[in-house]
Amino acid sequence: MPVNLNPPVLALPVKGVSLGFACANIKRENRKDLLVMELCAGTKVAGVFTTNRFCAAPVIVAKEHLAQADGIRALVINTGNANAGTGEQGLQDARATCDALAGLLGCQSNQILPYSTGVIMEPLPVAKIAAGLPAAVANMVADNWLNAAEAIMTTDIVAKAISKQVMVDGVNITITGIAKGSGMIHPNMATMLGYIATDAAIAQPLLQQMVTTAANRSFNCITVDGDTSTNDALMLIATGKSALPEVNVAGAAYNTLLDAVSEVAIFLAQAIVRDGEGATKFITIAMEGGRDEVECKKIGYAIAHSPLVKTAFFASDPNLGRILAAIGYAGVDDLDVSALQLYLDDVLVAEKGGRAASYQEEDGQRVMQQSDITIRVVLGRGAVNATLWTCDFSYDYVKINASYRS
Amino acid sequence: MPVNLNPPVLALPVKGVSLGFACANIKRENRKDLLVMELCAGTKVAGVFTTNRFCAAPVIVAKEHLAQADGIRALVINTGNANAGTGEQGLQDARATCDALAGLLGCQSNQILPYSTGVIMEPLPVAKIAAGLPAAVANMVADNWLNAAEAIMTTDIVAKAISKQVMVDGVNITITGIAKGSGMIHPNMATMLGYIATDAAIAQPLLQQMVTTAANRSFNCITVDGDTSTNDALMLIATGKSALPEVNVAGAAYNTLLDAVSEVAIFLAQAIVRDGEGATKFITIAMEGGRDEVECKKIGYAIAHSPLVKTAFFASDPNLGRILAAIGYAGVDDLDVSALQLYLDDVLVAEKGGRAASYQEEDGQRVMQQSDITIRVVLGRGAVNATLWTCDFSYDYVKINASYRS
Repeated sequence: MPVNLNPPVLALPVKGVSLGFACANIKRENRKDLLVMELCAGTKVAGVFTTNRFCAAPVIVAKEHLAQADGIRALVINTGNANAGTGEQGLQDARATCDALAGLLGCQSNQILPYSTGVIMEPLPVAKIAAGLPAAVANMVADNWLNAAEAIMTTDIVAKAISKQVMVDGVNITITGIAKGSGMIHPNMATMLGYIATDAAIAQPLLQQMVTTAANRSFNCITVDGDTSTNDALMLIATGKSALPEVNVAGAAYNTLLDAVSEVAIFLAQAIVRDGEGATKFITIAMEGGRDEVECKKIGYAIAHSPLVKTAFFASDPNLGRILAAIGYAGVDDLDVSALQLYLDDVLVAEKGGRAASYQEEDGQRVMQQSDITIRVVLGRGAVNATLWTCDFSYDYVKINASYRS
Repeated sequence: MPVNLNPPVLALPVKGVSLGFACANIKRENRKDLLVMELCAGTKVAGVFTTNRFCAAPVIVAKEHLAQADGIRALVINTGNANAGTGEQGLQDARATCDALAGLLGCQSNQILPYSTGVIMEPLPVAKIAAGLPAAVANMVADNWLNAAEAIMTTDIVAKAISKQVMVDGVNITITGIAKGSGMIHPNMATMLGYIATDAAIAQPLLQQMVTTAANRSFNCITVDGDTSTNDALMLIATGKSALPEVNVAGAAYNTLLDAVSEVAIFLAQAIVRDGEGATKFITIAMEGGRDEVECKKIGYAIAHSPLVKTAFFASDPNLGRILAAIGYAGVDDLDVSALQLYLDDVLVAEKGGRAASYQEEDGQRVMQQSDITIRVVLGRGAVNATLWTCDFSYDYVKINASYRS
């Protein structure tokens, strides 16, 4: 079950965005698996995408359309099939999906951005998607974000949605975001799928800068299993429907919006980890006193990806030497292990190259029983900090992934 | 259970090597957990060790002694405690172990190489080891390799030992090797613990070159869980007790011996994977047509470390798009995915960026049922090949590592 994560109860409409869904029977029957998000004229859209070389066909097409179109008018998202590892046919299928929706909405095909998530290397069932689109378009309304969050789930147990309101120059701005993801989570520029919309108006280059920065603060700091997906995408949508004039310089208004967008992105990214496949623990890995962010993240990810560390946390077993081993093989060649300190929450576990004299097994045991735990590594080499979030590794992770297609 | 790996039935004595063991109750009662390997005067020893920055105290001391001693006369190996992450006290404990054995054997302390394997960050019980050494010394005989292989086991289910004889210049040379390891296996210069002895005489610099080359062909090509241990060591011992004159040039005799030693090392390395924690499948990952070894290994290890790939193999589920995803995120930035081919044994699975037209699910299903499977990735970029070996990821891996200390 998700770690300290409840289903969302409120997600505020964002003026200029309408959402509709359908059960298109793409992988299973009678399950919301198709989402259409229509955007008002003048909306600006920016995004970051997976760096996987086998990136999915819809990722390629979405990037093309973002570059070509004079105004994006809709997003279409299906679950149950990733349309990745599908070659030339996959590209045709992604374009056919856009064509079908463009016909219904009365816009150009390249004004539509397609997204897919699900099984890799199976042909996209375009006919099913095309057959499902009219129903999705028919039920489009502004107050549909919770249904939208459900419609993009795959192995997620809980839908992920959040809203935030922030005052900018006396105008109340709304930001609403949804995301999906549970396995194949080690985003590298973005996450599985995340969509954040605001009614603020933000100029295109600033919008791109904002989504990149927010992704670096959030989705690029999480991992479930170290597998970077073929379909990752995080999109930031600015409809401009609030009374706030367009933000076109990186000043105070930009920073307020950036922080609010980042807060939404961090909530969604952490929600993905809390709902990580088989997760029973939410683990914050805080690196302090590094020389640069690269070495902080190297060490943090070595800990976060170690199956031995993750299974020890699943067992609530303070077998914390495994964390030292992971720090040691992280690839920081000149690391002086005698200078660093390892804490579990407030408990000093190791220093001077070994177990701290003050460390008591029962203190480690106490913290390991918690469902939210912080591993803090104080490197003592510099002034840079970095924080990652991950989860443990349980029987259920194996169970979920050994039976995913069946 | 180990994948197509039977317990060893024969391990030939190597002239000049005597082995003795004891049950020293280091972690559990009444279990062989202490090994002494005495070497005749004139024996040459070379080795490769872990690159983990938190390398264990015995690794540090063994390297010191190898550099200082005028002749190594014995190795002492304990299981049940890694003496890693133990700081200054750990170094004193490793030296105390050597002192105790030196007193019994009548040699200098720095003529002894210590090794430990087991739990990290717990103090080494030196008193128990010192108390066990007299019994180990008392039962030293030449024909004791199978007991020795058992004495170094931790979570191993099956002992790992092999012998090979090879004719060099008309002299029959014996090579016998043992190894242990099952989890925390992603050697980086060596494996958990491996010892290979020969009665050939080999000059010191050539011996070092030989063990490094053999490690690169064997232990440096395996992974179980991607965790590089704090205690890895592979040692090559040449007693010079055969009639063959010392090998001191890298000519035909050297190459014959290198190939034979490599064969022994590859058997032992593969045995570690076949006995990998929870393993049900042995997977060979053959990379072909790469530009260099670095990119071949990057892609090979991305596949080998992917929990999603490993759980699909556990389930015998040909969910092979996960292999494409791993290839895609391996970090080869200019990889043209439309130029590569993916085979499962003899079945062409993917080409031109997607599923091969000839691929049938039942063919993939048939191969996935096997216990030995080859993943072949033909990159089509160059002339370099590389092969790795790994295993799948099962419930039992989680079970073993969630309960390792209890």
